This record gives sequence, C-alpha cells and structure tokens, in this order.
Amino acid sequence: MAVNSAAIRWLGDHLQLLDQRCLPTETLWLDIRDSQQAADAIRNMVVRGAPAIGITAAYGLALEAQSMGNDASWVTLQNAVATLADSRPTAVNLFWALERLQRYAGDLQGKALAQALAEDAEAIHREDLAANQAMGEFGADLLPSGATVYTHCNTGALATGGHGTALGIIRSAWARNQLTGVFAGETRPWLQGSRLTSWELLNDGIPVTLVADSCAGQLMQQGKIQAVIVGADRITANGDTANKIGTYNLAVLAQHHNIPFIVAAPVSTLDPALPNGSHIVIEERDANEVRNVQGKSLAPEHCPVYNPAFDITPAQLITAIVTERGVVHCPDTAKINSHLAQTKES
Amino acid sequence: MAVNSAAIRWLGDHLQLLDQRCLPTETLWLDIRDSQQAADAIRNMVVRGAPAIGITAAYGLALEAQSMGNDASWVTLQNAVATLADSRPTAVNLFWALERLQRYAGDLQGKALAQALAEDAEAIHREDLAANQAMGEFGADLLPSGATVYTHCNTGALATGGHGTALGIIRSAWARNQLTGVFAGETRPWLQGSRLTSWELLNDGIPVTLVADSCAGQLMQQGKIQAVIVGADRITANGDTANKIGTYNLAVLAQHHNIPFIVAAPVSTLDPALPNGSHIVIEERDANEVRNVQGKSLAPEHCPVYNPAFDITPAQLITAIVTERGVVHCPDTAKINSHLAQTKES
Repeated sequence: MAVNSAAIRWLGDHLQLLDQRCLPTETLWLDIRDSQQAADAIRNMVVRGAPAIGITAAYGLALEAQSMGNDASWVTLQNAVATLADSRPTAVNLFWALERLQRYAGDLQGKALAQALAEDAEAIHREDLAANQAMGEFGADLLPSGATVYTHCNTGALATGGHGTALGIIRSAWARNQLTGVFAGETRPWLQGSRLTSWELLNDGIPVTLVADSCAGQLMQQGKIQAVIVGADRITANGDTANKIGTYNLAVLAQHHNIPFIVAAPVSTLDPALPNGSHIVIEERDANEVRNVQGKSLAPEHCPVYNPAFDITPAQLITAIVTERGVVHCPDTAKINSHLAQTKES
Repeated sequence: MAVNSAAIRWLGDHLQLLDQRCLPTETLWLDIRDSQQAADAIRNMVVRGAPAIGITAAYGLALEAQSMGNDASWVTLQNAVATLADSRPTAVNLFWALERLQRYAGDLQGKALAQALAEDAEAIHREDLAANQAMGEFGADLLPSGATVYTHCNTGALATGGHGTALGIIRSAWARNQLTGVFAGETRPWLQGSRLTSWELLNDGIPVTLVADSCAGQLMQQGKIQAVIVGADRITANGDTANKIGTYNLAVLAQHHNIPFIVAAPVSTLDPALPNGSHIVIEERDANEVRNVQGKSLAPEHCPVYNPAFDITPAQLITAIVTERGVVHCPDTAKINSHLAQTKES
C-alpha cells in the first residue's frame, strides 16, 4: 500500500509530504489528510514541481473521497476538485491528474470510488517515475560526451514521482559517464536551485556548481556550457513552454550562443487545448518572496514588486522537447500533434 | 573643508563612509583614518561603485600622507598606494584616481604633499558630481518620452560623488518628466538593486518596481521596457564594458528585443590601455555571498560556487556609452579614441 518517492509518501490512509520550504537545513514531513490540506500544501509550496503537484492533487482527492465514506460521489467531491484546481494555475499536470481520475473512476460511488481514486493516484505516482527514467535516456542521447550543462529551478526527485525531468536527464547522463558537471542557477526568488537542486545533486555525488541566475550569460560566453536543460509547467500545442521565471532569459542566451536548449516534461505537461503561450495564465506570487529571504528583509518595506512565477519561452527558441515517448526536435504544432498521437514507446 | 555626498563625507582630518552593507535597514557611518581602513572599506564593500571607490581611495591616500607628517613622500606612500590598488581589481577608477594624485602632487613632500592630496581628492569628489549631472542630461536625451527603463546594480548617489551614472540619467529624465517608471533588478548576490537602488529611487519619489534578475527577459518580451541603462567598472579601448555580473545577460536580451542598451560612466572609467575586454581581470568573490543571504544559509554548506563579481559586455551589444563629455553611439576603438581626445564640453 505504500508508494514512496523523495518528497511524497503514500501511506494508504494519509499522505506525507516533505516540506520543501525547510530544505536543505531541515527535513520535515507534513501529514496531509484531506483535499484542503493538499491544496494548501501546493499553494504554499510545501510541494512544488508540476509533476509532484499533479501527484499530490490526485492523492488529495482520494483522501477526500475516503473521508466521505458512503457519501463520496463526483457531486460531493466537486468542492474538493475546485479547491485543488485553484491551488496553482500554471501547472497543467494538476488539471491533467484531476481529469484522469474522473475518467478512471467516473461511474463509481462511496468506498468503491475512494478505492479507485487511491489506485489511480498510485498509478500516476508510479508511472511518473517510469516516465522520468525513459525521459532521462532519451534526453541523455542528445548530450555530447563530456558535456557540462546548466539547469534552472528544481526538476528532480523532489519535483516529480522520482528521478526528475530535466534533472532526470542529468542523472541518466551522469550514470552513462557522459557528463562533466552541472551549473545550477540559484533561481530567485524561491531559490529552488540553491536549496533543492544543489542538495539533490550533492547527495548523488554529481559535481554541481551553484551560480547566481545572472551568471548564465557569462558561462555561455566563456564556453563553459554545452546545453541548457529545464523542465516545464505547461507546453501548448505549438511547443511554447511555461516554466519557472528566468527560463526565457536562458533560452534567449542559449540561442545567442548557439547552445542547445532542451525542455524535459512528461506528456501530461502538454496542453493541446491551448494553441500557443499567449493563452497561458501566469501566476503572480507575493511581493515578499522578492523583498525578503527566509524572513530577512532585503529591500525597503513597501517597495513595489513584480513577481511572476513563470515565463513563456516561444517554441522557436527550443531545440528539443523530451517526453517519455521520445524527442520532438524544433517543436511546432504538427510535430507535437503527431507526438501526442503516437503510442508510448517504453 | 567639508565635502559631502550621499555615502562619503570628507571632514578634513578623517573620512566618513556610509556602511552600505547595512542599508536599507540601518544607517551607520564608519570613520576612516588611514589607507588601510580605506582599502578594507573598499574590499568589504562598505563603499562600492567604481566612482565612489576612486574617491575613497583618493581620500585614503591623503589621510595616510597626513598621518606621516614631515615623512610623507611618494617613497613612504608606496605601501599605501599598493594596498589601495589591491583592494578591488576591476574598478579602473581606483587606479585612475591614484595616478591622478601622483601627477597632481608629484614633486611635493611632507605636509605640502598631504595638503595637495587632500585638495585633489576633494576635486575628484566634486568633479564626479558635476560629471554625473552632465551625463544625466546627455543620457536623458537618448530616452523616448514616457519611457520605462530597466537598471541593474546600484549606480546612484551611493555609488558615486552624487546624482549617479545610470541612475543619474534616470534622475535627470525623471526631472524632465520624461520617465514613466523604473524596473530595478535585485542584483544577486549582493542585492544592490533591492537594498540600494530601490531605496534611492523611493527616497526621490521615482516610481520603482523591484524584480528578480531573471525577470528581465519577460519584461522585454511583454514590451514593458524601452531602454536598459547600466553603469560600468571599466571600459576598454574598443568599448567592451566590465560591469556587475548580469549586465551581459541584459545586453543580449536587449539586443534580442531591439531595445537600446545604454552604458553610463565618467571618462575616468575608460581604460584605453586595454585593447578589449579579454584583458580585464574579473574579480571572484566569496562563495558565501551566493550560499548565504545576510547570514541565513540558503544552500548546502559546502556546495561549490562560482561567484564572479563582473562580466564583460562586448561593444557590439552597446547602443551608446554616455560620459560627461557626451555620447558615443555604437562604440568602437576609433570613436572612443576621438571621444577621449575631445575637450570637456560641460
């Protein structure tokens, strides 16, 4: 009954989430017992990373159904679905997971519904790990031997069901002795690079060097990077990609320096309903994420702030999108359509 | 006898520096009484910004000569010159100020030497303010009406003898009602944007919005910025510009979005002895500037870090260099040579 990954433990009657706000200085697990607690954990970034958000939302809905006993139905669950869907607007995996559960358990009620939701949440969790491992192999094929790569935000075991998306490619390339090192951008304001990516890579013994985000251009100018690899929170029909703020900067810089810019994401991140990136809702977060760091004030108290969580990288700047099904080179609508139509290879 | 600016007060027998490490939460002035204290203040970033470093070094040498009484000579001052020159390698204004003092007071000794050094240090201080005011007018001429501009690091009254270089242009444009607003990049790792630029602009009532450095691309993509204006620590004969790490990122992004990229610096920042940017020594600073913020640990304790203080923006990416003598459009060696040959206009 127990499915475990680096940051998500399913214990059958409740969920445990590693509180990523406390890393790397503290390892604290929080108990999640209903959909409201799951939604709060997503909104407050106890858990983050598009795939991990999808998995957490799925378990949250299963827990809500369990707590309802015989009353559980898609009608009584509607508030829970809405609360979870509202927790973070940009990560499409959240909506994908909730829709998948509805398709899987659409006709059921009561305890049977609760059981089916738990089963499918576990399947989503397990399949995500397998998807990341497949992605890791496809992505590693794209890297030259001896490459040093640059990554942004955290796309590792903490952000997914395990292994990671962009960090999964890095792990797979390292396992093949194909990688020389990794530069991790610290990823202000939330510092996923400093706090999470460097921690994961150090734990795995992969040589990581932490840099300020604004250092990326200089590293490319000096020839120190052979590829940029990032994750995605949503990819539209034409390949435009929403990802952590700063991703677009890296894509422009990579193009200027003729360096491959690789996006890694499971198929569940593709959102063919949106024709292009202009339709993606960009979440704005609290000004204090920029004005403060861990409670320390860095700026004048009432200084106005603009704090978008994501930006949109147009498909034209993306060398390849890697999913568990393979690689879409120079993505466009036709290629992504045909990629979605294809059966899973692995 | 007292020359004062926002961060530097000359009191005849000693210098007071505003400790910029404590801003914006605390206003603390430190007494500087000899060249070693001045060099330490520069190295430890009590005072920063290329012009302010030059002014501080000049006063530091004058104080050292004062303390020597009748023994003061260029021979007995050699250690002090070396200590000051060694305090930060990239800011050319430091070397320029020390050389200017040697030319000004070359034949003197004892108290006459000390007095001449103090006189010329005060002149450097006063002239820098006047240079910035001239630069402000020349630079404001380059901005469209109603512009919103992006700036990086701090180039204001705190970084100079007053008014500022890039921030001086912003101040002058604001005074002419030409400006709609300013986006200030927070400027990791030292956060000059959060702590100093936003503080200066808020104090002047100029509408500032603070952003993470990685937000610049998105702002340009959305058409929210009409110019990028930055300072410089050293400009080589061909126009290549060393400035705060992240400047090069902004220059590449500005070119990609067809946005003017303007460098503002006094003539003392031009270093015709170096043919191009490949000859500039880039200072690397302590890893803990990236791993920590104000004593708070953000990353695993021993995580390797690369922390260059500056990067080099090639002249090809620079729309215009603004000095107190006027504007060099699309800078190259010939234009910079002729700019240096020209007599001061203002």
